[in-house]
Parts: sequence; structure tokens; C-alpha cells
Amino acid sequence: MKIAIDLMGGDKGISSNLKGAFMALDEFKDIEIALIGREEEIKRAMENSNYENERVEIINADEVIENNEEPAMAIRRKKDSSIVIGMRALKEGKVDAFVSSGSTGALLSGGILIVKRIKGIDRPAIGFIYPKVDGNGFLLDAGANSECKAKYLYQFAIMGSIFAESILKMESPKVGLINIGEEKEKGIELYKESYRLLEESKLNFIGNVEPRYIFKSKADILVCDGFTGNMILKTLEGTADFLFGNIKSVFKKSFKSKIAGLFVKDDLKEMGKTLSYNDYGGALLLGLSKPVIKAHGSSDYIAIKNAIRQAREVVKNDISQSIEKRLLGERNEN
Amino acid sequence: MKIAIDLMGGDKGISSNLKGAFMALDEFKDIEIALIGREEEIKRAMENSNYENERVEIINADEVIENNEEPAMAIRRKKDSSIVIGMRALKEGKVDAFVSSGSTGALLSGGILIVKRIKGIDRPAIGFIYPKVDGNGFLLDAGANSECKAKYLYQFAIMGSIFAESILKMESPKVGLINIGEEKEKGIELYKESYRLLEESKLNFIGNVEPRYIFKSKADILVCDGFTGNMILKTLEGTADFLFGNIKSVFKKSFKSKIAGLFVKDDLKEMGKTLSYNDYGGALLLGLSKPVIKAHGSSDYIAIKNAIRQAREVVKNDISQSIEKRLLGERNEN
Repeated sequence: MKIAIDLMGGDKGISSNLKGAFMALDEFKDIEIALIGREEEIKRAMENSNYENERVEIINADEVIENNEEPAMAIRRKKDSSIVIGMRALKEGKVDAFVSSGSTGALLSGGILIVKRIKGIDRPAIGFIYPKVDGNGFLLDAGANSECKAKYLYQFAIMGSIFAESILKMESPKVGLINIGEEKEKGIELYKESYRLLEESKLNFIGNVEPRYIFKSKADILVCDGFTGNMILKTLEGTADFLFGNIKSVFKKSFKSKIAGLFVKDDLKEMGKTLSYNDYGGALLLGLSKPVIKAHGSSDYIAIKNAIRQAREVVKNDISQSIEKRLLGERNEN
Repeated sequence: MKIAIDLMGGDKGISSNLKGAFMALDEFKDIEIALIGREEEIKRAMENSNYENERVEIINADEVIENNEEPAMAIRRKKDSSIVIGMRALKEGKVDAFVSSGSTGALLSGGILIVKRIKGIDRPAIGFIYPKVDGNGFLLDAGANSECKAKYLYQFAIMGSIFAESILKMESPKVGLINIGEEKEKGIELYKESYRLLEESKLNFIGNVEPRYIFKSKADILVCDGFTGNMILKTLEGTADFLFGNIKSVFKKSFKSKIAGLFVKDDLKEMGKTLSYNDYGGALLLGLSKPVIKAHGSSDYIAIKNAIRQAREVVKNDISQSIEKRLLGERNEN
């Protein structure tokens, strides 16, 4: 299995991305890696760090798509960008998955225009794994589609269910619909209609879930439109960040509290990771015919390594194929 | 100044609400209070707690509107409910403000049907004060209006600005539009149009704010539709709750961490209050011609006392009048 990694993406630069890639090579002996980006810069960075591995190849890409570029336009114009070249390699079967911490919009556009969608999926979605009181949850769409229709949310639920079964190893995963209240008739029209579609489906739908309970809910998968999902994800990050800042200041208050801080420092650090994307690695672009993993723009090398781990699992489980089959199944029985 | 308090609302029951009311009477010597609810139950509860105060009257209300009732219907049918009787007393000038921890929907419907809206305001909004790194922020709409138009968001911004000036004592408060990105053209159509309206207004508009930065942003007021605002508020509560649960378990891990816990217990408790509605008291229903304060359904007596404090400030500053004047001003100059 060969996984392509976009070395030009993210805030941390080539050498950090490279470090993550080589950590993954060490940990997973069954993968090969294609490093995508400016060949000379990559070679120099590899020499500086004494990186060598015969399971590595470099694919040159001279251009970079910046975060502020209009995605579809950038994909069309920058044929030599790391994202376009990575996506083409994926499309042509030269690699089995593509990992990038570049612009989400560009990855989505590239995915739709180059890799193409799974038959029967109208819109790919961004899914992210988050920690719950009793395991993991999976929320989608976390920001790919600001404007949604009920049938998209229904498709998100199918894709999420298959992801949870294949990757999170859950049996008959429970699907919840994010909403402002638990009752069936809550929320805007889109949500009322989505409720009806999910209720009539063969999915294990358990009803509405308020964001207040996402960490405690029985639902394994939560679906919502991308505008709402993005708001939830960002509120969660902002709140965690704010509270950790406050906790830190508590431990700086007095001599006594500084001592207390020393006693629990490691445990608190461990806990801090709970809501950190670095440990979860990538967000998955579900709904494309081949696996594209979006690592967080601020990903450090650990996050890059974890995104590669996730890519490896997705390839092993052939998720796109499973989604296509399930969609066919649901259609044939309706 | 007389403030009416609905003793039948909330999860904690009459005696807790009563305790809050009498605490407020002790603290604020310039207010009178009208206790609204089943007279006999109230009298019994007062006797049990030895409460007496000549600045208190009881207004009998035999019925209670439950949280699961359809709001507008309940307001029309339950003429003797504490909410309807409180709202009527407000409308007729018998009291100057109404505080209730009852059903938000019923308070909104009652507000619109009985107290009526401010001229020029299409939809009342729920505003809530939250802590920031450098003071307080005010977010609206936190859930009154699931479906919004851009002009509602613009009106929310006007109401929020006046609230921030009058109650939070801010000069020329900065208005931010909640969105999934900072750039002007981000988000769904409603948000693009709201951006344009805010940009053209005389408000101190500073652009889009991602929920990731609500605690750090320069914006004093954040506006969004009620569906999104409710999602943000609930995600914030859920995340804080989840993290505090995790912190508690860190301090139970070992003997050493238990000692550490003892050292910082009080400071952590203090910090826990930061995101607790009890200390902030009520959410305001802005846009009604007279002040209605919604206390959180789980409000304890401290929260009730703080909601009464907030009602007192709102009456003193005559916010509804200020909003009406400002709206007239904005219209005349356009």
C-alpha cells in the first residue's frame, strides 16, 4: 500500500511533515510513502535530518495552493500544485490514499473534480472523531457543505455508519441527529425533514441529540449540516482552549497551587490531549471514490503520523467500496 | 420599582425561587417584589422559612405552563398560569419587570402576544452574557428564532449594542458576526447578507468571528441566528461539563493528586463558576416593550437573585425605550 503525503501543506512546514511521514514508515512496515512537493526542498530537508528509507519516493510538485485562494479556481489553474498532483496520483492508482494538511476547500474541490465522488453520494462530507465519556464519537459534516438538503444528511449518516463499523469497529452504530432539542419536531425545516428520512431508513437512528450531550449521548455518529458542524467543532475547540488557559492560571496563583500543579502536571497534560486534534490525526473526506485525509492545518508531526495511520486503516477496510455497496442496497430495497 | 417573579418556573421549585427573591430584597433596598404562583403554596413556603417583608405582595396564579406544552397554545389557553398573569401585570404597568425560569417558548410567545414587541423589531431575541479573557461578551440570538432573515440579525446587533452600552457600561461596543470563517464572503447566504447590512450600518461592526475565538475576540457583541446561537451555547455547556468531569477524575487518580486537589479545590470551584449560568443569572428577552428575564431552568436561588438584579438594572436603564429611539434614529438617517 502506498500513501501520498502533501509536504507543502499546513503551518509547520516541510520538515515537520517529513518527520511525521518517517515516524509512520517506522511504525507501519506495510506501507510505502510518496512525498509530494518541491523535490529539491524535500531532498535538502531529508539530508538535514538524515532521513533515508527505501520505501519512500518523491513526486515533484512545484506549486502550492494557499489557504486564501478560491478553491475550485486554484485546482483548475495550479496543475503543478502538491494537491492536484497528489489527487491525480490517487485517481490514477499510483497511490492508495492522499494525506494533506492544506486548504480544506482545495482538498474538497480537488476531491470532487479529480478523484470524483462515490456513485450515489451528492456531497462529500468532513467527518471528525471526538472523545466521549465512553469511547469515541464521529461527527459529520464538520464543514464541507454550508448549505445542505435533507438527503445529504441522510447520506452523511450512511457514510458515518460505515466508517464507524469499519474503522471504529462498532456494531450497528447508533445515529443521532444534532438539533436544538430532543423532540421530533424541533429545529429548522431541514432538520425536521432529515429526521423523517433517518427515521424511515434502515439505519440505527436514535433521534435528536443536543450539542450539550454530544460527549454523553448514546449516539456513535452525529450528523448535521456543515455550517452547524463547523460551528460546533470550533466552539468545542474555543471552550477547551479557554478553560485550559484558566486552569493554568489557577496553578500559578500561589506557592501552594504551584506545588499542586507539579503533582498533577502529567495527568492534566494527558487530559489536555483528549480534545486535541493532534492525537486524533485527520479528518476524513467521506464520499470520495478514494481516500483523502485532511490533517488539521496546525498539525504537528504526531498529527501527520496519525493521519497516515488513519489513511492506512481506511485503505485496508476499503471504505469507499462499502459505502457504494450500502447505497445500492438501500436503493434496491426502497 | 416592582419586579414580578414567577415562583412556579424551573426545576428547583417554589422554595428555591422564594429564597432567591428574598435574597434580592435584602440586597436591593429599592425594589419591591410580586410573587406569582399558587397563593396557598407560596404562603406555606414563606411560613416554613420564616420569610417576611413588607415590600412583598403575592399575586395568585393557579395554573402552570409546562415545558413540553406548545407555547402559543399554552399562552392562549392557560389564562391563569403564572406566566400569563405575570405578563399581564407587566403589560398593565402593575410591575416593571418579569422574571421567570419557565419555558423559554412560553415566555417568548407570552412576550409577543401580551407584552408586545418594540416598534421596529421584527423578532425578539434571547441574549446571554458570557465571560471572555478580558471581560464580558454578549451573544444573541441564543435560541428564540430558528429561522432568521438578515434584517433580524441586524436588529439583534442594535439591541445588543444598546444592552452593552446600558448594562455592561461599554462605550461604542464592537459587534461581530458569528461565522465559519473570518473572510467577508464566508458562510451561508443569510450570513453574507447580514455581513453587508452590518457593514453599511452605523454600528461598530468589526467583521466575522469564528466560534473558536468567542472568548478571545475583540467583539463585545456577537450576533447569529437562533439555531446557531443555541448550538453554540449548548456546545459550550457540554464541553465545559465534559472537561470538568475529566479534571475531577485527574484529582482522584492517586494519593498525590488527591493532595493536589485539596490545594486548589477552592480556586477550581471559583473557575467552574466562570461558565455557569448561576452566576450570570438570566438571559434577556430583548425586543419586548417591557423587560422579561428568562432565568435558566436549572437556576438555583443564587441564579434567581442574579436574574432579579439584572431585571433591576434593565428597568433602571430603560433599555426598551433606548432600543426604540435608536431604531428610529437609524431609519431616519437611511
